[in-house]
Amino acid sequence: MNRYYITFLFSAAALCAAAEEIKSPDGKITVNVDVKDGVPEYSMTFDGKTVIKPSSLGLELVNDKDLMSGFEIAGIKTTSFDETWQPVWGETKDIRNNYNQLVVELRQPSTERLMNLCFRVYDDGMGFRYEFPQQPNLTYFVVKDEHSQFAMDGDHTAWWIAGDYDTQEYDYTESRLSEIRKLMDGAIDGNASQTQFSPTGVQTSLQMKTDNGLYINLHEAALVDYSCMHLNLDDKNMVFESWLTPDAIGNKAYMQAPTHTPWRTVMVSDDARDMLSSNLILNLNEPCAYEDTSWIKPVKYVGVWWEMIGGGKEWSYTYDLPSVKLDSLDYSKTKPHGRHPANNENVKKYIDFAAEHGFDQVLVEGWNIGWEDWFGKSKDYVFDFQTPYPDFDIKMLNDYAHSKGVRLMMHHETSGSVRNYERHMEKAYDLMNKYGYNAVKSGYVGNMIPRGEHHYGQWLNNHYLYAVTEAAKHKIMVNAHEAVRPTGLCRTYPNLIGNESARGTEYESFSGNKPSHTTVLPFTRLQGGPMDYTPGIFEMDMKKVNPNSKGHVNSTLARQLALYVTMYSPLQMAADVPEVYNRFLDAFQFIKDVAVDWDDSRYLEAEPGRYIVVARKAKGKDDWFVGCTANEDGHTSTLSLDFLDKGRKYEAVIYADAPDANYKDNPQAYVISKKKVTSKDKLKMKAAPGGGYAISLKPL
Amino acid sequence: MNRYYITFLFSAAALCAAAEEIKSPDGKITVNVDVKDGVPEYSMTFDGKTVIKPSSLGLELVNDKDLMSGFEIAGIKTTSFDETWQPVWGETKDIRNNYNQLVVELRQPSTERLMNLCFRVYDDGMGFRYEFPQQPNLTYFVVKDEHSQFAMDGDHTAWWIAGDYDTQEYDYTESRLSEIRKLMDGAIDGNASQTQFSPTGVQTSLQMKTDNGLYINLHEAALVDYSCMHLNLDDKNMVFESWLTPDAIGNKAYMQAPTHTPWRTVMVSDDARDMLSSNLILNLNEPCAYEDTSWIKPVKYVGVWWEMIGGGKEWSYTYDLPSVKLDSLDYSKTKPHGRHPANNENVKKYIDFAAEHGFDQVLVEGWNIGWEDWFGKSKDYVFDFQTPYPDFDIKMLNDYAHSKGVRLMMHHETSGSVRNYERHMEKAYDLMNKYGYNAVKSGYVGNMIPRGEHHYGQWLNNHYLYAVTEAAKHKIMVNAHEAVRPTGLCRTYPNLIGNESARGTEYESFSGNKPSHTTVLPFTRLQGGPMDYTPGIFEMDMKKVNPNSKGHVNSTLARQLALYVTMYSPLQMAADVPEVYNRFLDAFQFIKDVAVDWDDSRYLEAEPGRYIVVARKAKGKDDWFVGCTANEDGHTSTLSLDFLDKGRKYEAVIYADAPDANYKDNPQAYVISKKKVTSKDKLKMKAAPGGGYAISLKPL
Repeated sequence: MNRYYITFLFSAAALCAAAEEIKSPDGKITVNVDVKDGVPEYSMTFDGKTVIKPSSLGLELVNDKDLMSGFEIAGIKTTSFDETWQPVWGETKDIRNNYNQLVVELRQPSTERLMNLCFRVYDDGMGFRYEFPQQPNLTYFVVKDEHSQFAMDGDHTAWWIAGDYDTQEYDYTESRLSEIRKLMDGAIDGNASQTQFSPTGVQTSLQMKTDNGLYINLHEAALVDYSCMHLNLDDKNMVFESWLTPDAIGNKAYMQAPTHTPWRTVMVSDDARDMLSSNLILNLNEPCAYEDTSWIKPVKYVGVWWEMIGGGKEWSYTYDLPSVKLDSLDYSKTKPHGRHPANNENVKKYIDFAAEHGFDQVLVEGWNIGWEDWFGKSKDYVFDFQTPYPDFDIKMLNDYAHSKGVRLMMHHETSGSVRNYERHMEKAYDLMNKYGYNAVKSGYVGNMIPRGEHHYGQWLNNHYLYAVTEAAKHKIMVNAHEAVRPTGLCRTYPNLIGNESARGTEYESFSGNKPSHTTVLPFTRLQGGPMDYTPGIFEMDMKKVNPNSKGHVNSTLARQLALYVTMYSPLQMAADVPEVYNRFLDAFQFIKDVAVDWDDSRYLEAEPGRYIVVARKAKGKDDWFVGCTANEDGHTSTLSLDFLDKGRKYEAVIYADAPDANYKDNPQAYVISKKKVTSKDKLKMKAAPGGGYAISLKPL
Repeated sequence: MNRYYITFLFSAAALCAAAEEIKSPDGKITVNVDVKDGVPEYSMTFDGKTVIKPSSLGLELVNDKDLMSGFEIAGIKTTSFDETWQPVWGETKDIRNNYNQLVVELRQPSTERLMNLCFRVYDDGMGFRYEFPQQPNLTYFVVKDEHSQFAMDGDHTAWWIAGDYDTQEYDYTESRLSEIRKLMDGAIDGNASQTQFSPTGVQTSLQMKTDNGLYINLHEAALVDYSCMHLNLDDKNMVFESWLTPDAIGNKAYMQAPTHTPWRTVMVSDDARDMLSSNLILNLNEPCAYEDTSWIKPVKYVGVWWEMIGGGKEWSYTYDLPSVKLDSLDYSKTKPHGRHPANNENVKKYIDFAAEHGFDQVLVEGWNIGWEDWFGKSKDYVFDFQTPYPDFDIKMLNDYAHSKGVRLMMHHETSGSVRNYERHMEKAYDLMNKYGYNAVKSGYVGNMIPRGEHHYGQWLNNHYLYAVTEAAKHKIMVNAHEAVRPTGLCRTYPNLIGNESARGTEYESFSGNKPSHTTVLPFTRLQGGPMDYTPGIFEMDMKKVNPNSKGHVNSTLARQLALYVTMYSPLQMAADVPEVYNRFLDAFQFIKDVAVDWDDSRYLEAEPGRYIVVARKAKGKDDWFVGCTANEDGHTSTLSLDFLDKGRKYEAVIYADAPDANYKDNPQAYVISKKKVTSKDKLKMKAAPGGGYAISLKPL
């Protein structure tokens, strides 16, 4: 680890008059910070082009004078930092954290309160946060609203989803900022829990593109003990303002100085690929909090899941129970409905399949009692996370899995009842330790209990992190679904191995995702951390899986392979059922081969909403894997293989869309070819509409 | 145990037209239940006198048709029950549970929903509840409001405190029902958390007296997983209606059939003493839920507490910490303020005192870190319930106590942050087990977290019981302060050894309690279970304890002794400090002698707001103890000792107010006398204004 930390201190008095300027290490980005008529403001440029016009900053408090105006600059501190660190898992082996920092110390003379604005400027963007040092006149305070503005310099194109306190599972809309209002209604479809707040409210990470060729991304980093930020657009002036998630009584955050807000981030480049390779969000998070991380391992898994999601099978065991009370229940007296795939025989089948094909784990959903009436009832004691259904022999199945070198993956659906989950958490993790589980997929479907709290409020954000740190005490990895969107906390808590927090593959079986979906997610949702996208669906026509289904997977089969590379995650599912994979074992070979942890990643081509092509080098190996995902227009590439070791020969196995493939009518048409290549080669590749390709490259 | 259970079943059709009538076993009480124009109603008489005029019953639901009208009677079931049971601890050795039960099965034809009204009629009152059997059209539902009416037959005299979702710590007001509205403002004084809802809203248990000599008490029994009921008075028509505590979003209760509400109780007699000897509330609760109760033991204790409450000492350790963050704190680097009595030396002094005088336990408040800024900050992580202050050696002090046959009593103040408490609960109870604590005083001071929840809502009621049942797994007894008022749950969960839930002795040092206070509490607050009233204050002039105090204890010293008998509790504190007791060791002898568990109790004289005289026989012994508490008018008795064993001689030690004693000017004037008595004797006794007397009677 090399680390440089240089501090410059200026006297306050000399500087009060002038705007403060700070530049990125490469000098391309400039951030100016000033106090105008008592109001703090900042602006930002990239290569002389405006990224953020002058934008005001401040917080409104509950029952207290606001922290928005009446400020003067009391001091200025600038520092530089340069360190290279190694993530426990990640897209690259090393990550460089290099920034220049400006802290503007503000004083509000009328109240004698202090607030610092801290800016860190990187070559690929910047982050700022509000800091509240220990001081006599501001210790405990409640945030009514945060008024951080992000003034845009034009009617940019944006890839956005509707602002919502309870769901992120929307399809992205590509539009001008000025069109958000009129497109909002159409951008919202139904969800188990949803609360919109504004016709121009959108979520972060928000990816934009300017007419003069800049890519700008707004998000946040290190969301800890604060509520999640949305953005509300003043679409007359094209000014975004932070919009925090309220708690049950409408407050936004409870603060205790010394403290600070999360980072508000602005990534910028004139090359879309830089948006994808940026580590700005991770760098703004704290280093790993755990001393021992040897127990944290990337996971490739299959699971008893798609049968229910797409196949019409059930998480429940019986139809006999209209009202389940867990402690007074005898399932052995009920009649099984026979549509419960979390049973011994079926799970053994998955274990056998996983063992045969080298998967690490088998997820089993619906293993535990309570699923007969788990959803939408505002039910407090909904699951005990302890008691298996009569047809799921937890000991036998774990023993069987372990005998084959496979683990089962635990599933904890909370139904949003988080007090109940916390009450059972220790015992639930104990149960996992007892039977040898080391990873849990948790879920937060439906409205929250405590009632009135939202999925992305401070209360729940505190809970999600509690679940992760408690799990760490048990050496358990967490993959939380329906939890708040990630903000890089996996750097600090790398047992947060995955999240959903966006519209995943499951929607392909419900109502479909846009063909462009996977060309947007890496620019947005994935900025904060990996997504358990559950790719690998080979049967696109859901009617063939479930006669009652009208779903269609808007992707070619070749693209499903590519997603293992384009959707970076240390946790990857092969989501389809064994019967389907057995029909396409040649294509399935790519899923078996592809790595889930990487020493290097090179984004070769990228344009949000259009295409992404990335090459990654497997962790500790010389194998490379390439993936391409394309929107409904397809994509043609001439790939230079210059990332390969010079002078070395590789065997490339190319999984491509067939010439007549397309996501709608002919998704399963693929061609597998092999060729010997070197770093000097170029590959002409073509992704079909809604298609893609995957390539494995192994040294000969 | 003798038990009789006889069931009569009538066909529904034959009975739909007529009102159903059910009588108490002794025939004195009659309850009529009817459905009039589709609305369920009931009425009640005692000895021909009206107790409840026809009053309607029903529930309003959230997003569903109400359960208030459109009903017809679908069936009638009457049963009788007679059983005598033995409480783990109590006022008497045996308790008879003898009632006639009427279940009126209601059907709402428009919705095909079922709701039963269950009435149990005892000789001393009745209880009713709503029951919801399992049924196709009503499983999960949310109560918007419960509309249970209690129509009074006149402008009764009532002893009431203001309805409030967050505190019960008010002084009682005696007034006509018609005067409640105009007296309400004056009946409310400040509290750490308070939320009134109506100018005619009052709390249960509400004691009333009619002009024709009936004593009527309204309360509830078995409050489990429902919100606590207040009463709102229509003071034109003198009709009370149930008023439930709302949750953060305004809902009152979340229900899952099969289920039922708590019991709504109406106690009645023409003799005030029957109000005090009634076991109706206990009888309406379920039998003990624990198989082994051998670990549950009544407790007499002293504690490091009054020094802070009245003496100006501190729970905290230092003044150096304006902002305490528990996990990043090093108390050893702070300067102790020297006013922290929970220190090794002082606690050892209490242990020595307890051992010398035969007390079971020593409560120590302020032992754990975090007290520097614990209150009023809406602080989530406020205590860890684990870490002692540097001057409290938890191992040494417990070892020292045990070596002297004494235990320490744990203290868990939650500051209303119940998620934090639940997160630490298991470890907190483990710590208690490790060091040999078997009882905890818990506290819920201040506004609740989760924010928006109230002290008496369903969320918290669920929590309080959770804390008790989790404690039971550790063989720990719970004495919860600021928790919901008890409703007899100590029958089912007898490790709920005490509660505060009313204005206790601490207020004597703040602003005083009315001299009549302890003549009201047994009629009201104590109906649901014992109170940790913390009597035994011998120094009434708080200035002598703390020069800054203006407090005065509105009681004579003799009455402080009597409270150990009149305020029934298996948990009794001698609340004053050892230095004070050492000045009055002759009077202190009564506190040493008095029992805390009883085989028998005889209420000799009683009038709410005036006086209470009770004699109790010590558990497993032949000793009797008599106590009298009187209001500002004092009280003169001629006590027949006919409760003593016939033909047996006893030594009576009489602790009486001196002739010139009174609570204001001369509270410490007492006279101790001894005489030999038999069951044939009568004692002429006189309680001074705000005074009382205590008598111990031991067989010679």
